[in-house]
Amino acid sequence: MATFDSTEHAHRRFNALTGEWVLVSPHRSKRPWQGQQETPEPEVRPAYDPTCYLCPGNTRAGGILNPEYTSTFVFENDFGALQPEVPTGGIDEGGLLRAEAESGVCRVICFSPRHDLTLPEMDTAAIREVVDLWVAQYQELGARPDINYVQIFENKGQVMGCSNPHPHGQIWAQRTVPTEPAKETVQQLAYFEKHGRTLLSDYLEIELREKQRVVLENEHFVVLVPFWAVWPFETLVVARRPVQDTAQLTEEERTALADMLRRLTIRYDNLFQISFPYSAGLHQRPTDGKEHPEWHLHMHFYPPLLRSATVRKFMVGYEMLGNPQRDITPEFSAERLRTLPEVHYKNAAE
Amino acid sequence: MATFDSTEHAHRRFNALTGEWVLVSPHRSKRPWQGQQETPEPEVRPAYDPTCYLCPGNTRAGGILNPEYTSTFVFENDFGALQPEVPTGGIDEGGLLRAEAESGVCRVICFSPRHDLTLPEMDTAAIREVVDLWVAQYQELGARPDINYVQIFENKGQVMGCSNPHPHGQIWAQRTVPTEPAKETVQQLAYFEKHGRTLLSDYLEIELREKQRVVLENEHFVVLVPFWAVWPFETLVVARRPVQDTAQLTEEERTALADMLRRLTIRYDNLFQISFPYSAGLHQRPTDGKEHPEWHLHMHFYPPLLRSATVRKFMVGYEMLGNPQRDITPEFSAERLRTLPEVHYKNAAE
Ligand SMILES: O=P(O)(O)O[C@H]1O[C@H](CO)[C@@H](O)[C@H](O)[C@H]1O
Ligand SMILES: O=P(O)(O)O[C@H]1O[C@H](CO)[C@@H](O)[C@H](O)[C@H]1O
Repeated sequence: MATFDSTEHAHRRFNALTGEWVLVSPHRSKRPWQGQQETPEPEVRPAYDPTCYLCPGNTRAGGILNPEYTSTFVFENDFGALQPEVPTGGIDEGGLLRAEAESGVCRVICFSPRHDLTLPEMDTAAIREVVDLWVAQYQELGARPDINYVQIFENKGQVMGCSNPHPHGQIWAQRTVPTEPAKETVQQLAYFEKHGRTLLSDYLEIELREKQRVVLENEHFVVLVPFWAVWPFETLVVARRPVQDTAQLTEEERTALADMLRRLTIRYDNLFQISFPYSAGLHQRPTDGKEHPEWHLHMHFYPPLLRSATVRKFMVGYEMLGNPQRDITPEFSAERLRTLPEVHYKNAAE
Repeated sequence: MATFDSTEHAHRRFNALTGEWVLVSPHRSKRPWQGQQETPEPEVRPAYDPTCYLCPGNTRAGGILNPEYTSTFVFENDFGALQPEVPTGGIDEGGLLRAEAESGVCRVICFSPRHDLTLPEMDTAAIREVVDLWVAQYQELGARPDINYVQIFENKGQVMGCSNPHPHGQIWAQRTVPTEPAKETVQQLAYFEKHGRTLLSDYLEIELREKQRVVLENEHFVVLVPFWAVWPFETLVVARRPVQDTAQLTEEERTALADMLRRLTIRYDNLFQISFPYSAGLHQRPTDGKEHPEWHLHMHFYPPLLRSATVRKFMVGYEMLGNPQRDITPEFSAERLRTLPEVHYKNAAE
């Protein structure tokens, strides 16, 4: 029999950050697709939309007026999933029915006053202002005794449940640490205790040596398709310096993060020549007052598209009941992303 | 301050089967929706479609001819994510890059020769034949030394990535136990070792006493919205007798399972008066030769729709980076499902 070849044979890969597995089926990438087609979103939007509840000067739910903001703008989510004032309490029946009250804060962050922009269409200086707001919010919310975890994220595109194309992200900050960062804490802590270095430092070292999953780099950050990527074009943005959170970033590092975000999202848009949908978010240390030297700042990008602007990957059936599955290999995806130009297709010369 | 009320205040619930949490935000169910709308599928299909690769007598990929089958029909998936013959081997770089070859079998099960039917439109006798095929497949595949887990499931509807409306499900059977059943093994085993009874026996006892999450019952099975449900109208079908797998079901129990599936899926279709999309699948003991007295046979239904035929729940951003979140409570969903008629809306008198 032939020897095992990860570009040809089905295999499982271990996610070192969560401790879970993904099934990879490289031989399957050629199957025909007859299912649902996504509808790409209209490309042309006005710079200002009088019906948009995020545009400067417009009215939000409940009659609140947005200021005439000129760069970023943050406000409390009018329909937040978490609220700061919740009576404490819970349920416990034999360990089988267990619930506990949860409190927190949900905020919305507008990235720009311009209704027609997205991150890849903004310049580095403007993205840097978004990064600065993320840092300030992480610091402000994280300092509160009732907030032990701050999740900053962006849902982009209708296919990712985003109900308004105005460039914006969200923050959900809460009393407890949610499941995903809790898993990452367990894995990172076990590694740190054994090796005295962060898991992502050592992982990054391997990736920079092997090069095949690296998409782009600058002096302070590296973007790669993780070895254990679940989504077809999933990427991980990793800080070269093992910092625990964004508040520790130097001025230069903040600008470097903005530069990475710009260049990565331009490549994403260029992949299928559309405004590329994704969910993305920062993972950083819990704000529970502990030091967490095991934590290593990173950002996940989870984009759903698979083969074109209209064919996505579905995480259904087997994925929900078993574990995630992918067809194209992470190495193939990294190669695709790496070879794309860094000039946005809308600005490319005809 | 008021006392904690799970119908009003945000809280986390613990999933006793997986050990993970879900965030519940009951106060949020009234927020407006301006995002993506799903397109319900055409209701009228022909009993036979000459272009369908699952209809009797038609040609599949690779020129293979389907037999003129008259009840159920199973065949090897022409584009399976798993293949039986894979060279063994793997990768391990410092525990950070870990992969191992995976082998298995992927099959497709047609539920009926009729292109225009779905489970809720079939009678109990016809669904019983589907159940019988599931059992036979579990037994046949599970007996193979190279198969340690058999996942039987159905993706229904385009929104669940199903590319052909002909009523069918799938089987992915493999060498290793996937992540979700592995988590359920850990939780069930810990409970069984402590209490000497299966986790789901004791859980079922509580639910039958409290009644508020029970949707329907017959002599051998109970359908309920689990206390920790993630999807808006998620349900769990639980065997009353603590059997480990479908092969242990008596004749009567098999018919009772068919009866439950028929009545549950009719209620689902009646909820928004459309063919209701979902992913569903059986969870039963691994076929690794061990006894697994901790395992308790059950079936999960994960339907994505939230408020209507066109508005779904998105598991994105916070859900991918933090943990699942829901707005309406499981108790509210159970109440909705419980009060629906058991005559399919297509057959209801005008
Ligand atoms: O095999 P199908 O039905 O074409 O594919 C569907 O179900 C599979 C198993 O849940 C998923 O991996 C695919 O993403 C989905 O599109
Ligand atoms: O708050 P939004 O953008 O309306 O809602 C979107 O993001 C949330 C956080 O990821 C999800 O819970 C919702 O399902 C999704 O539609």
